Amino acid sequence: MAVDHKRFLADLHKLREFGASGVGKGVIRPAYSDADIAARKWLAERMIGAGLAPHFDPVGNLFGLAEGTSLLMGSHSDSQPEGGWLDGALGVIAALEIARSCDRPISVVSFQDEEGRFGVTTGSAVWSGGLPLEHADGLTDGAGITFGAARSAMTDLSQGFVDPARFSGFIEMHIEQGPSLDASGDQIGVVTDIVGIRDMSITFQGQQNHAGTTPMHLRRDAFQALSLFNTRLNDRFRNVVTPQTVWTIGRVDLHPNASSIVPGRVRFSMQWRDGDADRLARMEEIIRATAQEVADQQGLVLEFGPLLGLEPVAMDTTLRTALENGAGRVAPGKWRKMPSGALHDATNLSRLMPVAMLFVPSINGISHDFAEDTAERDLVAGLDVLEHAVQALV
Amino acid sequence: MAVDHKRFLADLHKLREFGASGVGKGVIRPAYSDADIAARKWLAERMIGAGLAPHFDPVGNLFGLAEGTSLLMGSHSDSQPEGGWLDGALGVIAALEIARSCDRPISVVSFQDEEGRFGVTTGSAVWSGGLPLEHADGLTDGAGITFGAARSAMTDLSQGFVDPARFSGFIEMHIEQGPSLDASGDQIGVVTDIVGIRDMSITFQGQQNHAGTTPMHLRRDAFQALSLFNTRLNDRFRNVVTPQTVWTIGRVDLHPNASSIVPGRVRFSMQWRDGDADRLARMEEIIRATAQEVADQQGLVLEFGPLLGLEPVAMDTTLRTALENGAGRVAPGKWRKMPSGALHDATNLSRLMPVAMLFVPSINGISHDFAEDTAERDLVAGLDVLEHAVQALV
Repeated sequence: MAVDHKRFLADLHKLREFGASGVGKGVIRPAYSDADIAARKWLAERMIGAGLAPHFDPVGNLFGLAEGTSLLMGSHSDSQPEGGWLDGALGVIAALEIARSCDRPISVVSFQDEEGRFGVTTGSAVWSGGLPLEHADGLTDGAGITFGAARSAMTDLSQGFVDPARFSGFIEMHIEQGPSLDASGDQIGVVTDIVGIRDMSITFQGQQNHAGTTPMHLRRDAFQALSLFNTRLNDRFRNVVTPQTVWTIGRVDLHPNASSIVPGRVRFSMQWRDGDADRLARMEEIIRATAQEVADQQGLVLEFGPLLGLEPVAMDTTLRTALENGAGRVAPGKWRKMPSGALHDATNLSRLMPVAMLFVPSINGISHDFAEDTAERDLVAGLDVLEHAVQALV
Repeated sequence: MAVDHKRFLADLHKLREFGASGVGKGVIRPAYSDADIAARKWLAERMIGAGLAPHFDPVGNLFGLAEGTSLLMGSHSDSQPEGGWLDGALGVIAALEIARSCDRPISVVSFQDEEGRFGVTTGSAVWSGGLPLEHADGLTDGAGITFGAARSAMTDLSQGFVDPARFSGFIEMHIEQGPSLDASGDQIGVVTDIVGIRDMSITFQGQQNHAGTTPMHLRRDAFQALSLFNTRLNDRFRNVVTPQTVWTIGRVDLHPNASSIVPGRVRFSMQWRDGDADRLARMEEIIRATAQEVADQQGLVLEFGPLLGLEPVAMDTTLRTALENGAGRVAPGKWRKMPSGALHDATNLSRLMPVAMLFVPSINGISHDFAEDTAERDLVAGLDVLEHAVQALV
């Protein structure tokens, strides 16, 4: 029995209705939001229809379990505050279609908070044992809400944690979220390895004061400290990074954030990614040293949040080869091997089982944005590659 | 009949109960908040007790009117999001005590939104004719709420605008909000002039994208643009400013403000102050040119908000001399003449009538902070100087 392209696409569009932004195909479905929980309950129904047993765990990860030992497939259905309709949802719905069309034992999963409202791929990090639940419960989002408080909205559904031993491996399909495949005109990317990531919040505490009566030379301005830190960091990274290395200050919370007040405190996010664990460590040294130097020079108090992160991970050779053979059949001459600059749940699952990943193109490389999209023929090609790989594997 | 120090201090502490922060003596009483409106209703009752006719105008300015022509005294009772207990409240309660103890015709006022939740000294700017009401109604606070929507919470109290012609002049007592008096050990500062201010919001629009898959050289990162703008601006101002000039980026709103997303937009406040109108204009040229240069180089779209501001203002000689004579009697050898680096409602009222200002020390120069405070003996000294001045004037 073959995969049903129409049914696959229809389910993809149905899932998009949960948290639809009303802007293009975009969705607003952050972890534990009403839209996210409603989407997971709908997915659980669809799993039953596919002959799977739905199972929520204590952090809101949703599994659709096949009997006995099975191959696990899926991704995540939570989104960024302004997310695209595919992102992780594509991998979940593709897995669902494979499970219901294929006669081999396939289980499906949608992990929770992959987008990092609280940490980094929080749901799969907890399930894989990489992040102790008691530590996760203490993590806070930008609004100061704890992971523990947020996940309590779903604990009534929990049937406990699933035993990873029942799965023989994990395959995740995802959009590339970058410009490479779209630029080269390829339909499929088979992932060789996933880059490592580090994420840390940093706080400069200065002196809040009146913006009219405090002379410039007496100020301990938290924003000025952040700006100086950023300028020096960019300069010092030059000797360390490669063209593939990236670093981002994506969140800035200034306090009290009023135009007539010298800001007394800034808390900001510092994130960096690279395929080489040693380089990630050298960058961390430079970040800590530069922040301390700025704090000392400007007379501010410096505080580092906990360092979250994941090591670079190579894909499993057997699973990866099956995907490469499938890609060769479905898209001859229009597929490539490539690293993943984005982080995925597969990184965490590599602690438990063999993992592999498949990419389809992101139009103009845009993702984490309402404008994110992928050509329908590429979505279908990705599904077909998965089908070929599963037939060869299981 | 002389001023009553105990009654004056008791009313000051009573007013502090509205929006008390629970941290030190601090208050949270921004314009149009429940605490602010409740405080104004309490003040209206106190005005009746002082033999004055309370009168709210369409923007929430509260007057306590004496019959016939009178000298206007007061300040404002709204606070910063994290404000001190004295700030403008001191001038309002001092005026109330003068009005009820003095047999001369004294009117009292508490202006609305002096702290600039929406604009710059918004309430007195509208009353003085410096800011047309229809323009003011379009101003928004950090949360996007319009002034028009906010003031509708008080329009049921409005009796229309008060005719400025009934006032012979305006005297405002205020805390210094700076370190000068506290450092020199003086009890009283008689203001010579108030510096001018400019305030403008600036927006850089870049491209929101994934923080893991977007190469550094392809990014149009709004935070990086802000940091570059700030660094260049500080450098270019060096040749233009004096030790009295100040400039501040106090508000930064990054979008979407998530650690795993290259920020696509930043809206921030740019404020600068100086006693020389020509220098304020030269600084504006540098700000606009530097922002445009950064936007062009980094491929971002630049947008300037409306330029708000007030010109430098000299105090009226007659009123100022009366305050100087009073200071000489109350605090011989412990008072000084000084400019005001902070902006005050008196700046707007100078369009309508002669104005003068009196400062008392701020301990450690701290203000716009829960920790703001002034020694009781200095509060009382300020009240006594006002009494002497009023006896000599009216």
